[in-house]
Amino acid sequence: MRRAIALAARGLGGTSPNPVVGCVILDPSGEVAGVGFHAYAGGPHAEVVALREAGGRARGGTAYVTLEPCNHTGRTGPCSAALLEAGVARVVVAVSDPNPKAAGGAAVLRRHGVVVDEGVLAAEAEEVNAAWLTYVRAGRPYVTWKFAATVDGRSAAEDGTSQWITSPEARADVHRLRAESDAVVAGIGTVLADDPRLTVRLTAGVPAPPRAAPVLRVVVDSGARTPAAARVLDGEAPTLVAVAEDAAVPAHLSPHAVRLPRVPGGIDLHALLAELHDRQVVSVLIEGGPALAGAFLREGLVDRVVGYLAPALLGAGAAALGPAGVSTITEIHRLEFAEVTPVGPDLKLVLRPKSPVFPNPVSSKSSGPQSPKES
Amino acid sequence: MRRAIALAARGLGGTSPNPVVGCVILDPSGEVAGVGFHAYAGGPHAEVVALREAGGRARGGTAYVTLEPCNHTGRTGPCSAALLEAGVARVVVAVSDPNPKAAGGAAVLRRHGVVVDEGVLAAEAEEVNAAWLTYVRAGRPYVTWKFAATVDGRSAAEDGTSQWITSPEARADVHRLRAESDAVVAGIGTVLADDPRLTVRLTAGVPAPPRAAPVLRVVVDSGARTPAAARVLDGEAPTLVAVAEDAAVPAHLSPHAVRLPRVPGGIDLHALLAELHDRQVVSVLIEGGPALAGAFLREGLVDRVVGYLAPALLGAGAAALGPAGVSTITEIHRLEFAEVTPVGPDLKLVLRPKSPVFPNPVSSKSSGPQSPKES
Ligand SMILES: NC(=O)c1ccc[n+]([C@@H]2O[C@H](COP(=O)([O-])OP(=O)(O)OC[C@H]3O[C@@H](n4cnc5c(N)ncnc54)[C@H](OP(=O)(O)O)[C@@H]3O)[C@@H](O)[C@H]2O)c1
Ligand SMILES: NC(=O)c1ccc[n+]([C@@H]2O[C@H](COP(=O)([O-])OP(=O)(O)OC[C@H]3O[C@@H](n4cnc5c(N)ncnc54)[C@H](OP(=O)(O)O)[C@@H]3O)[C@@H](O)[C@H]2O)c1
Repeated sequence: MRRAIALAARGLGGTSPNPVVGCVILDPSGEVAGVGFHAYAGGPHAEVVALREAGGRARGGTAYVTLEPCNHTGRTGPCSAALLEAGVARVVVAVSDPNPKAAGGAAVLRRHGVVVDEGVLAAEAEEVNAAWLTYVRAGRPYVTWKFAATVDGRSAAEDGTSQWITSPEARADVHRLRAESDAVVAGIGTVLADDPRLTVRLTAGVPAPPRAAPVLRVVVDSGARTPAAARVLDGEAPTLVAVAEDAAVPAHLSPHAVRLPRVPGGIDLHALLAELHDRQVVSVLIEGGPALAGAFLREGLVDRVVGYLAPALLGAGAAALGPAGVSTITEIHRLEFAEVTPVGPDLKLVLRPKSPVFPNPVSSKSSGPQSPKES
Repeated sequence: MRRAIALAARGLGGTSPNPVVGCVILDPSGEVAGVGFHAYAGGPHAEVVALREAGGRARGGTAYVTLEPCNHTGRTGPCSAALLEAGVARVVVAVSDPNPKAAGGAAVLRRHGVVVDEGVLAAEAEEVNAAWLTYVRAGRPYVTWKFAATVDGRSAAEDGTSQWITSPEARADVHRLRAESDAVVAGIGTVLADDPRLTVRLTAGVPAPPRAAPVLRVVVDSGARTPAAARVLDGEAPTLVAVAEDAAVPAHLSPHAVRLPRVPGGIDLHALLAELHDRQVVSVLIEGGPALAGAFLREGLVDRVVGYLAPALLGAGAAALGPAGVSTITEIHRLEFAEVTPVGPDLKLVLRPKSPVFPNPVSSKSSGPQSPKES
């Protein structure tokens, strides 16, 4: 199963709005007969790829799949049917499919006499699919807030200059983060101050994931103040400008504008995420600024924080994070370090909320007489 | 030599105002015959300990020493004489002694026909003795600034509450840092706001280094405002209150006060460090607050930064670092990550200036015909 999870991870960035899935098929003697992963939306499912490689050796064998095989006929046929047809005797599943449209694969397989084990290495498999599972279970995109700062938490010097605090390596990593997201979100404050392009510009040699659609750019702009000359409107990628329902939208914004409810402080961020969910946006990257990031955090809408810390000190200048609904220490947003890695001279920190924003239920149930075996 | 450096490190915290030194003696066949380190000021030197263990096996053998053997008769006899007497044929030295009083050991050994190699693993040996080498070369104590903050660089919530941002494990580590320092320094702002004790309170089971004197507490307080009831005056450890030369010193402070020149912003920190150097303070730990830390940084007086980052976000509240003389990005204080280690749920970052505040010259010269060999 660990191998299947590693295979699944290879699909990250390409499969949206589908999950990533990996599959390993063993022949009846326990030898690996076929492997596969889901690489892009509309492409063949992991099970189909693995079964194709396994051929006749799948008969009487075992399939390890990171996600319950689908049971619906989408752009590809149901995987449960493919596994039955190939004569697989046992299917080991990490995570049950939370998607009502797709679920039922395990039940169909069992009805046809296949032994199905569920919940094997579920926590690890949940992690590789965290974005998609949040999307399905919570009905909103998975939200990552990214920031770059000095170790004393500043994103700019006193006079506003900030190029460059972090290294070229860290900035290249941010483009990889963008490439793995379906949408990149910035506040109007950042658009007016920095005029960012918010496009994915990968370093030469870094392969771009085979995306179904380019990464959507989103500006949160209640007053519809995004200027006509703003680089986010340069046409290099689609752009959505989220404006308040009562805003006067200038002509240059009308092709981009979506009207959303107003709340104190700006746009209702829950409504924004619901809108993005409707557009099949599975994961979003909040690129700032501090005010918008603070608002997402205050609303409990941040699933992951990625910080790039430069080994430097400023002592004054704009903070990386603005007011986030904390007035006293007991209200502090507690997280956990999930990853700490050097990126060039900088440090990349990945943090997750201590209690997941949207809890991932991990169930472990087995229908067969055999105990789950690891591939 | 690597073993000798590791031995030297065991003396950290105990040897002040002496350096830490490690020594490994090989017999003529290359077998380890004796090892030693300098454990506390006034105690036997590393070479003497190692020679004692080696006994007659040292004759014709090789001594690896992290610092050039001393040549002066202090509380213990000169180590150069002890090595000659034991009949050691070759001495391999990592760092030449920069102390004019002690230097000359290598020359004496050579004059008596001993082969002396210098500069072997010098960089690593410099590092373990960084505090003492700065003390001797720069004529001021080695300065470490310690802070504790959230990943967004805040040390307190908006209302001033801050207990506890970091974990008990991180706080225990701070007491180890204090125990390794000769003095702990705080600004009057911190004394008035938090009334800290600034004493070393090690966790049960952690052995205290065998210090010659307790860790000195220092308050930087131009206006002599430290209250009579302040915990830093509780008598549990000696306390120095650095006041401006023109300050009116109340009676309760006169036993503690030292008068120093006034500069814009407070006490002249160079003068403070010179005063501490005169009192044989080899290393100081700046415990805050943000204003004082910023001033040390602005003056180029920070040799090491130790930050404890809690996996948490505040978005508002006091910053860990105050104005540090940076107004635009080109003036940023650039450092390097030297160590990144988890401490409980927190992250401990050790940073050093990119160009050392006081450069450590690394020389490599050999007097003998043999090429340096590693133990
Ligand atoms: N270090 C980094 O990683 C990083 C990244 C990006 C930006 N920055 C810096 O951040 C600065 C700009 O940040 P900023 O904080 O001023 O602006 P911002 O966070 O980019 O945008 C804030 C604005 O977004 C609008 N908004 C709409 N709905 C909102 C809601 N629910 N909550 C909060 N805001 C909402 C508001 O304006 P309306 O009321 O007009 O809608 C608000 O003023 C720039 O200087 C930029 O350089 C740093
Ligand atoms: N997170 C942490 O690790 C940490 C650690 C310690 C404190 N803190 C917090 O920091 C806050 C207090 O910090 P603070 O910045 O107000 O005060 P501070 O840095 O503790 O002390 C600053 C004061 O020291 C005096 N001073 C004398 N010479 C100075 C010089 N050359 N440069 C700068 N200051 C000099 C000045 O007062 P005079 O002019 O009267 O001499 C100055 O106002 C407290 O709230 C405390 O909780 C946090």
